[in-house]
Amino acid sequence: MSRLDETHDPARRSWVEGANDASTDFPIQNLPYGAFSRDGSGDGGAVRIGVAIGSQVLDLTTLEEQGVLRPGGDEAVFADGTLNAFMALGAATWRQTRHRIADLLDAANAPTGDERAQVSRALVPMKAVRMHMPVFVRGYTDFYASREHATNVGTMFRDPDNALMPNWLHIPIGYNGRASTVVVSGTDIRRPLGQLKGPQDDAPRLGASAKLDMELELGAIVGTGNPMGQPLGTAQAYDNIFGYVLLNDWSARDIQVWEYQPLGPFQSKAFGTSISPWIVTRDALEPYRAPTPERVKPLLPYLEEETPNNFDIRLEVDLAPQGQAATTISRTNYKYMYYSAAQQLAHHTLSGCAMEPGDLLGSGTISGVAKDSFGSLLELTWNGRDPLPVEGGTRTFLEDGDTVTLRGWCEGDVRIGFGACSGTILPAPDGVPA
Amino acid sequence: MSRLDETHDPARRSWVEGANDASTDFPIQNLPYGAFSRDGSGDGGAVRIGVAIGSQVLDLTTLEEQGVLRPGGDEAVFADGTLNAFMALGAATWRQTRHRIADLLDAANAPTGDERAQVSRALVPMKAVRMHMPVFVRGYTDFYASREHATNVGTMFRDPDNALMPNWLHIPIGYNGRASTVVVSGTDIRRPLGQLKGPQDDAPRLGASAKLDMELELGAIVGTGNPMGQPLGTAQAYDNIFGYVLLNDWSARDIQVWEYQPLGPFQSKAFGTSISPWIVTRDALEPYRAPTPERVKPLLPYLEEETPNNFDIRLEVDLAPQGQAATTISRTNYKYMYYSAAQQLAHHTLSGCAMEPGDLLGSGTISGVAKDSFGSLLELTWNGRDPLPVEGGTRTFLEDGDTVTLRGWCEGDVRIGFGACSGTILPAPDGVPA
Repeated sequence: MSRLDETHDPARRSWVEGANDASTDFPIQNLPYGAFSRDGSGDGGAVRIGVAIGSQVLDLTTLEEQGVLRPGGDEAVFADGTLNAFMALGAATWRQTRHRIADLLDAANAPTGDERAQVSRALVPMKAVRMHMPVFVRGYTDFYASREHATNVGTMFRDPDNALMPNWLHIPIGYNGRASTVVVSGTDIRRPLGQLKGPQDDAPRLGASAKLDMELELGAIVGTGNPMGQPLGTAQAYDNIFGYVLLNDWSARDIQVWEYQPLGPFQSKAFGTSISPWIVTRDALEPYRAPTPERVKPLLPYLEEETPNNFDIRLEVDLAPQGQAATTISRTNYKYMYYSAAQQLAHHTLSGCAMEPGDLLGSGTISGVAKDSFGSLLELTWNGRDPLPVEGGTRTFLEDGDTVTLRGWCEGDVRIGFGACSGTILPAPDGVPA
Repeated sequence: MSRLDETHDPARRSWVEGANDASTDFPIQNLPYGAFSRDGSGDGGAVRIGVAIGSQVLDLTTLEEQGVLRPGGDEAVFADGTLNAFMALGAATWRQTRHRIADLLDAANAPTGDERAQVSRALVPMKAVRMHMPVFVRGYTDFYASREHATNVGTMFRDPDNALMPNWLHIPIGYNGRASTVVVSGTDIRRPLGQLKGPQDDAPRLGASAKLDMELELGAIVGTGNPMGQPLGTAQAYDNIFGYVLLNDWSARDIQVWEYQPLGPFQSKAFGTSISPWIVTRDALEPYRAPTPERVKPLLPYLEEETPNNFDIRLEVDLAPQGQAATTISRTNYKYMYYSAAQQLAHHTLSGCAMEPGDLLGSGTISGVAKDSFGSLLELTWNGRDPLPVEGGTRTFLEDGDTVTLRGWCEGDVRIGFGACSGTILPAPDGVPA
């Protein structure tokens, strides 16, 4: 059964400024959700829910207050400045709301009279808003689903002849990350202190990470949960995902290599994770579904997929030293991931683990086969061996003042874009208080 | 500077029933906090905050409504049925509130008139209440701080000659756990499904865990947090901890051994973690402070402690097969832990990781030197080699219907007890939906 409907019609146009530009990330076929505020707007900087359309943001919190849009009926689901309550209503409501919003913005079928005036007044220029975390994330889980990335890391740090662990082709490998430091694009990232120990050192020392890295990932936002003790199949898991964001899993490689055995990465990944502010919905991505790569070994039935659950999403990474122009250091595609987010979510619940609205699943670093498609500096510079040319110099790992920006989009008759996910590195703290 | 004051005076007595019995876990010197409801009480089963005293629970939510106790001033911090808002007020308020509650319950200094009547009416028999999660846990982190436990596990699964990883004597090793399945004592635990693969198998199969285990731990509850990018020293970390609970880190050993490389335990630990309902405050534990064991190697200065930050807490594990009496299978003490909770919390923030009120830090399995002091069935039965006698049979790992109960207390002029942390094993689900 095709899930495509008139909201995906590439011929559809909007009456909103900028929405029909070929270069926009946000045509009427996209309609991603985010949280925003307006400084100096007289509302005390309240955080509101909005949808991106062209160069504008449609203020759903206001439209809900006015009764133009009531996805929760009596319950005001856009009132608290997060999408958690809306997502908890489930996939049928997400789709109905998508239809309703598309109709309100449609050039051929525009609302008239009072409703048109209400919708027009609810449009805010994107350049006048500040973006916030779109969801409250209680659980953040990071996966490891690119075969190329896992092979590269295994080659560098373990055994080139057995780079891929024996479990990797059977399990969507993942670990619990730190939700309290998941931040929205634009938030500065402070270089972490940590225990550092070189292979020749007798003992570790305290210092600022000298191998600060980025990781290009996609984040899946869980929209509806499952009760403790009740695993999900992959089809249900696919439907429980509300949408996707770009995700930068900042990593301190020198802290990681000393701390990670035997229980996995901890402080090397805990100091910050950035996500793009606009959640591109699963509904908007439907035309870009793609199969996962051919299986090297058969998967257990609970991980088999009846439908193509990956997406064809082009991805780029820019690195800009302080005061310099950006250089694009990687170009890749999400469709190369060996495990889909639906498979990751199904596996996440296999033990009976409860998932909740707002939970965030990082895809794992997205690396292609070619060297310029690798998703981390660790791989792009081969652990610092091959410095990378950037504007005004070279880089092995990140320096203070560097800004990393991820971009992603689906290409077809229309462009379904993710916007940008940026972060700038601040110097490490002076030390630890006594 | 001694932190002991009149709330620790062993001669102090309460006018409340059962509070002066030598066997109670809850004398006036303890005053642990929990969340409770009363079925059929006419309040719709609302969850309230209370303090345990003898055989009674003092209803703080009601006393706050009545103005007898106002720790948050105008803000009603006991209204939402969790302790998070109260804890966020900080250590000075915790201590003032402890003094105020002790005064209200003191036999020599009892309130009179209306106040006495209000306090009397706010006492509820413990056997009439149902306990709930006392805090909202956003971040659950599990550590690995018993040298004996880490050595035992390393001997069984890695290399007996190098059982302890080289980082272990320098880093309080920990990993992020799954907060959504942290449950209060009395909640049943469903045996997990998982990928299982024996060393001789070509491929994994889907099945119910056959090596379901418990782990005896203490949980530290973070009361006040730290902002992202700002590490804590150990002295501040000690003060930021509100209190402690018993914690059972249920573990599926057969799932764990196949999944855990290279990113650590995931589904083998995600199906459930039980905590005892009463948070014994750090203030109540002050008389029982104990030093950590002698350092095998010097720690980095950020982990050095000026004061003894461990506690002398006796611990026991009971195992009761369905319909059978319980057998005590382990007796140990928290004071043997190589790293204190303050050291763990300081290390947790070293990278700039933000901590929040309600975050839970599992100590790691608490194993002593003697075999009958080990804190898991994995160690007690040496991975199933040495079955353990229990009432009506033997056990290698847990069977359906088994109930595990942890108990803990400090012994001295008075007994500061934790109550019990129990859970019963339910059969695994039939399978995973298609």
